[in-house]
Amino acid sequence: MSECYDAIVVGGGVNGSAISYNLAKRGLKVILLEKDRLASKASSAAAGMLAAQAELEKDGPLFQLAKKSRSMFPNLAVELKERSGIDIELVQKGLVKIASSQAEVQEFQKMMEAQQQAGETVEWMTGKQLCEKEPALSPNLLGGMYIPNDGQLSPFQLSHAFAKSAASYGAEIREFTEVHSFIHRKGKINGVVTGTGKIYGNHVIVAGGAWSDRLLQESGLILKSYPVKGECFSIISPRPLLTATIFSHDCYLVPKKGGRTLVGATSTPDTFDQSVTLEGIHFLIEKAKKLVPVIMAGEWERAWAGIRPQSLDGLPYLGEHPVWKHLWIATGHFRNGILLSAITGELIADMLEGKTVQVDLSAFSIDRVFKTV
Amino acid sequence: MSECYDAIVVGGGVNGSAISYNLAKRGLKVILLEKDRLASKASSAAAGMLAAQAELEKDGPLFQLAKKSRSMFPNLAVELKERSGIDIELVQKGLVKIASSQAEVQEFQKMMEAQQQAGETVEWMTGKQLCEKEPALSPNLLGGMYIPNDGQLSPFQLSHAFAKSAASYGAEIREFTEVHSFIHRKGKINGVVTGTGKIYGNHVIVAGGAWSDRLLQESGLILKSYPVKGECFSIISPRPLLTATIFSHDCYLVPKKGGRTLVGATSTPDTFDQSVTLEGIHFLIEKAKKLVPVIMAGEWERAWAGIRPQSLDGLPYLGEHPVWKHLWIATGHFRNGILLSAITGELIADMLEGKTVQVDLSAFSIDRVFKTV
Amino acid sequence: MSECYDAIVVGGGVNGSAISYNLAKRGLKVILLEKDRLASKASSAAAGMLAAQAELEKDGPLFQLAKKSRSMFPNLAVELKERSGIDIELVQKGLVKIASSQAEVQEFQKMMEAQQQAGETVEWMTGKQLCEKEPALSPNLLGGMYIPNDGQLSPFQLSHAFAKSAASYGAEIREFTEVHSFIHRKGKINGVVTGTGKIYGNHVIVAGGAWSDRLLQESGLILKSYPVKGECFSIISPRPLLTATIFSHDCYLVPKKGGRTLVGATSTPDTFDQSVTLEGIHFLIEKAKKLVPVIMAGEWERAWAGIRPQSLDGLPYLGEHPVWKHLWIATGHFRNGILLSAITGELIADMLEGKTVQVDLSAFSIDRVFKTV
Amino acid sequence: MSECYDAIVVGGGVNGSAISYNLAKRGLKVILLEKDRLASKASSAAAGMLAAQAELEKDGPLFQLAKKSRSMFPNLAVELKERSGIDIELVQKGLVKIASSQAEVQEFQKMMEAQQQAGETVEWMTGKQLCEKEPALSPNLLGGMYIPNDGQLSPFQLSHAFAKSAASYGAEIREFTEVHSFIHRKGKINGVVTGTGKIYGNHVIVAGGAWSDRLLQESGLILKSYPVKGECFSIISPRPLLTATIFSHDCYLVPKKGGRTLVGATSTPDTFDQSVTLEGIHFLIEKAKKLVPVIMAGEWERAWAGIRPQSLDGLPYLGEHPVWKHLWIATGHFRNGILLSAITGELIADMLEGKTVQVDLSAFSIDRVFKTV
Repeated sequence: MSECYDAIVVGGGVNGSAISYNLAKRGLKVILLEKDRLASKASSAAAGMLAAQAELEKDGPLFQLAKKSRSMFPNLAVELKERSGIDIELVQKGLVKIASSQAEVQEFQKMMEAQQQAGETVEWMTGKQLCEKEPALSPNLLGGMYIPNDGQLSPFQLSHAFAKSAASYGAEIREFTEVHSFIHRKGKINGVVTGTGKIYGNHVIVAGGAWSDRLLQESGLILKSYPVKGECFSIISPRPLLTATIFSHDCYLVPKKGGRTLVGATSTPDTFDQSVTLEGIHFLIEKAKKLVPVIMAGEWERAWAGIRPQSLDGLPYLGEHPVWKHLWIATGHFRNGILLSAITGELIADMLEGKTVQVDLSAFSIDRVFKTV
Repeated sequence: MSECYDAIVVGGGVNGSAISYNLAKRGLKVILLEKDRLASKASSAAAGMLAAQAELEKDGPLFQLAKKSRSMFPNLAVELKERSGIDIELVQKGLVKIASSQAEVQEFQKMMEAQQQAGETVEWMTGKQLCEKEPALSPNLLGGMYIPNDGQLSPFQLSHAFAKSAASYGAEIREFTEVHSFIHRKGKINGVVTGTGKIYGNHVIVAGGAWSDRLLQESGLILKSYPVKGECFSIISPRPLLTATIFSHDCYLVPKKGGRTLVGATSTPDTFDQSVTLEGIHFLIEKAKKLVPVIMAGEWERAWAGIRPQSLDGLPYLGEHPVWKHLWIATGHFRNGILLSAITGELIADMLEGKTVQVDLSAFSIDRVFKTV
Repeated sequence: MSECYDAIVVGGGVNGSAISYNLAKRGLKVILLEKDRLASKASSAAAGMLAAQAELEKDGPLFQLAKKSRSMFPNLAVELKERSGIDIELVQKGLVKIASSQAEVQEFQKMMEAQQQAGETVEWMTGKQLCEKEPALSPNLLGGMYIPNDGQLSPFQLSHAFAKSAASYGAEIREFTEVHSFIHRKGKINGVVTGTGKIYGNHVIVAGGAWSDRLLQESGLILKSYPVKGECFSIISPRPLLTATIFSHDCYLVPKKGGRTLVGATSTPDTFDQSVTLEGIHFLIEKAKKLVPVIMAGEWERAWAGIRPQSLDGLPYLGEHPVWKHLWIATGHFRNGILLSAITGELIADMLEGKTVQVDLSAFSIDRVFKTV
Repeated sequence: MSECYDAIVVGGGVNGSAISYNLAKRGLKVILLEKDRLASKASSAAAGMLAAQAELEKDGPLFQLAKKSRSMFPNLAVELKERSGIDIELVQKGLVKIASSQAEVQEFQKMMEAQQQAGETVEWMTGKQLCEKEPALSPNLLGGMYIPNDGQLSPFQLSHAFAKSAASYGAEIREFTEVHSFIHRKGKINGVVTGTGKIYGNHVIVAGGAWSDRLLQESGLILKSYPVKGECFSIISPRPLLTATIFSHDCYLVPKKGGRTLVGATSTPDTFDQSVTLEGIHFLIEKAKKLVPVIMAGEWERAWAGIRPQSLDGLPYLGEHPVWKHLWIATGHFRNGILLSAITGELIADMLEGKTVQVDLSAFSIDRVFKTV
């Protein structure tokens, strides 16, 4: 295969698809390689929260990145629907972060102050106010932070919308194509070796989620990231239970179209096992019941699990390989893979094109793996 | 159960759901009864063509009804998305009706003249022009009518959007609830008997598709309609094969989001058997291959069948029961159930409310079953 | 359709299939009519316990029937495998009925005495003995009855094995064929009216489970039976958790091949709703966890529900219609449909052929519906 | 993890499971590692033919191996059912290999002579005789070889029966565990590195089917094998269409329990893509229709594909790594993976235990990859 691509993207999850979309839209000749099916792992297992303020409690580089990414989705929703016909099901009805103890009430107050100082909108709601806003909530709650700008969407639709839109700009998509190793020459990446042959390209972007590590070891890089299983389930109600997303320490409930509510997620480190345990379901039911008692009347739909890539310091890896030029890495997004996909796609495309990036990315650089952790 | 509804809708397919939506929106207290799951039969099996001009070749009451209904979907799409969060996936990219013989070429010319005189847009395209417009089409086609205003949508999403929007206006939805017979008194309907008890209401609307007949026999009415099985399959391509819907005598191809193409439909009368035969699949592949040869490279997704209600004269039944007051009937839509759902919902609501209906509905009245056919 | 069958069986569940099998095997020309798919309702939802002694605590006509039926399965397993190639997955490893209170301990002692006097094998096991026998059981149990002769099998396989074996003896099977009413003449049944036409036969047997009532009302008979929903779920373990079936007041656990364990069943009367509630799953997990704590580590497989037909006095209906000759009824088996299918098939065939039946069936006769209940 | 296993089996398909079963049964401490789910690739996609004589036309080492393996299944069926409760659905009703041209008629005659001289039973049947034996066959066939000893079974059940029986002998099974590389020391294998840590063992057996190559490259070995996709579909008939398996140049039909018929298989080299093409389905329908015209009335069930490992010389790889001691390889079985699993499990166990193997395995030895091909 003598054809040479501008960019080879490894990993057909939400981030690999977002990167492919951005690169193809800018006119690059892109090929997206996925070892299984598109969005078949964590990207379709996620609940799709855009919980920039709820997940990232204090200011810092990740908070900035998350806020920026969150703000990109309304435009993306329109763009992607036009290119692919796919509705990403963006819902901008806010998120309530419930305090589960008096200690958390205090902690949340500080968080709110910090966020307000950083210019973000957030307000406190008492248990009573919460019940007025969301009548399905338990009357016994202590209160919570209401974050109007944290939204949610369909991760499966988003991933496919990115990939199909990339294809509409000319990107080639190959499923069932596993990358075994890299081709490099004089310190610069040159292509990849797959299970069915070599593919040449000027840039290679590894966005393989929890499966990135094995491949990157072929480049001599040990990411020190690890897989974390998250279990979820969904129920269907005759009428929507909730308007806003409900978020607590242990559990979140995300209202989806058609009366569906997603409940997630457990957190089991160091496993690639995608099966759902009875323990996990029981845990989630107990937690969800305390927040939204009427959920018990809902109709069981299904349970599933996803494997998310976590880094040792909790920050994603975004940047060029410290030694091999033109090998780019975008992984370690943990619970924020959907939220960060918009900005990840744009940033990687900017860096790859040599554009000045206006975000400070030093916290996400790959060479921090060489520092003592 | 002493509660009394304004309207009891029997049948949770697209038409029962559309009727419930219209009634609930107007403030009526509605209950929708479905013997299985919502949209589990023909309404989710359909391809979703809004083929007013392609299916209904000459002017007449059905053509007028179909045109009117077709024009309602753009607004409905917005309304339903707002109420239910569900995107009905409306695509307004036209339809090409392919001539499969010289005889059909001539016939189509006449049809076009008639439609143009009726004020409709339609133009002839030669085989070459077709290939320019839709490069996936076979270069051997004789030409066809291009109908820019015939669109398509997702029938499953439409049905659920109607039902969930109805619920958002207060309608109650009961699945797994089969209606066994009617309660009536002094020539006026009063309610229904279900498998789990009686439900009282001032109006009853039977919109049970092919399953309406059995129930209506309980009111002494023999509809003389019959079930017609239609088999379909879908394939997935890396990029969309088509922009417009392709329609021929034997087979149609409908492009859906995400690179999916639906191919339908066979026509087997007098059966409720929803299984798909190998014969049916083979027939559809042969036909589709002649129209769009590259479809053969597509990925097989799945096959399914639906049972559509056909009347003896090919026209739907829309109106009040000839003897029992307040018993309404909306069935017999055959291949046009999705297309006609918008107007069906509105008309039944208008009639039930005693409003003057501006469409001439005499062709669809129920009492034609008493005339010799 | 002028063809005339010897017997028309209405209902393709386990009992309709067992009856068809017995009749076809005896050389009758049989047609089996099922409104949906074979064994698509309660017959595939059941756990498949042959719990003659566990379910039926005291001697009586139902106990005698159940014991007799239970004893027929080992031979049936061989016969059906030979005719159909289908293994019914019969497991004869006993059942433990756990006492959940001291009151139950006492009650069980009396039951055991009664059963032993009736010639049945049953022994008491202390909590400690139970843990030795079944190490997965909780060490906190009070003890239970060990019933070595209560076994279990796969209800889905059994139902299909009956139907396919019936077909191998020449029975015709028609799915998606709903019977609307009966044809009768001079007090004798003559055939049935289906959604697609009439079918003539000398005998009609209604074995439609919870769906029998509507049809029988067409014959003027009100069964006064009612539907009872039962919810279940299954988990998979690397190694089998249990050898024997575990049975308690609220919950049972049935070990299946391949490390699967079935947990059932809730009991919700007066509904045909086959959806599973979160409440139901939570209830079952809580109960199962107390009996077999390690079940929590199992892998979630799926949840489902079935609708079982219950009669007012808890006994099935087995016999001829009190007024119309040659119309037979076999329903109301409630939780014992699988267990009783072997004897039900044989008895109905015997009665229909006019053979002397050696079991006293008076307790099951249909005309008890006319008595004041 | 300081635990040390006697044997680490890599690959949870039918051969890895068979090897685990044999080793665990002999008392070894075994762990079976599978990167996805057990039997989720080729082992569940296969049709399960035991076509020793039909597939392997002339005598030779593979023919001998295949015959020996075929003879082992009747005992295995009993053993595995006892250990695991799983019926492998062994059917010993023979196979008919249809001649599709006069040239093939002649060729088959020679084959038959050769097989008869090798002591095998095989007889010629004319087209007319074939129709008498199998009335569903087309009356236009030229005739074929009838091979009474070639049977078939359920590959999914066989694979799970091996794995679950291995577990019952103490083997540990870990799904979702991918092996990245080997641990070796002084030319001897010592363990493996997985995505979630190291596992130590005295022997490692690689039985990863088409996915073996990548892993073996970590040991410096290039197998020169390649993946071959095979597409299949299944239909359901009211009564079994066939008794024997029907086998021709392009297509085979395998009768399964419950009226199911499997039709396979296309052959597409050099791809891991498990999607089914419309082309593939169309090809198989055309071929199957010529052999068994009435198949067209069958009910479509589903289509699927598997990826089979093929070696350059068409023979499997069975033996020890040429350089690293205690690293064993069992792959390259192509279309004979199910058939050869019985003997593969036994041979690898024998070799690993240092037993004298009575079969000449030189044709299958790994070091032939170093010879010029």
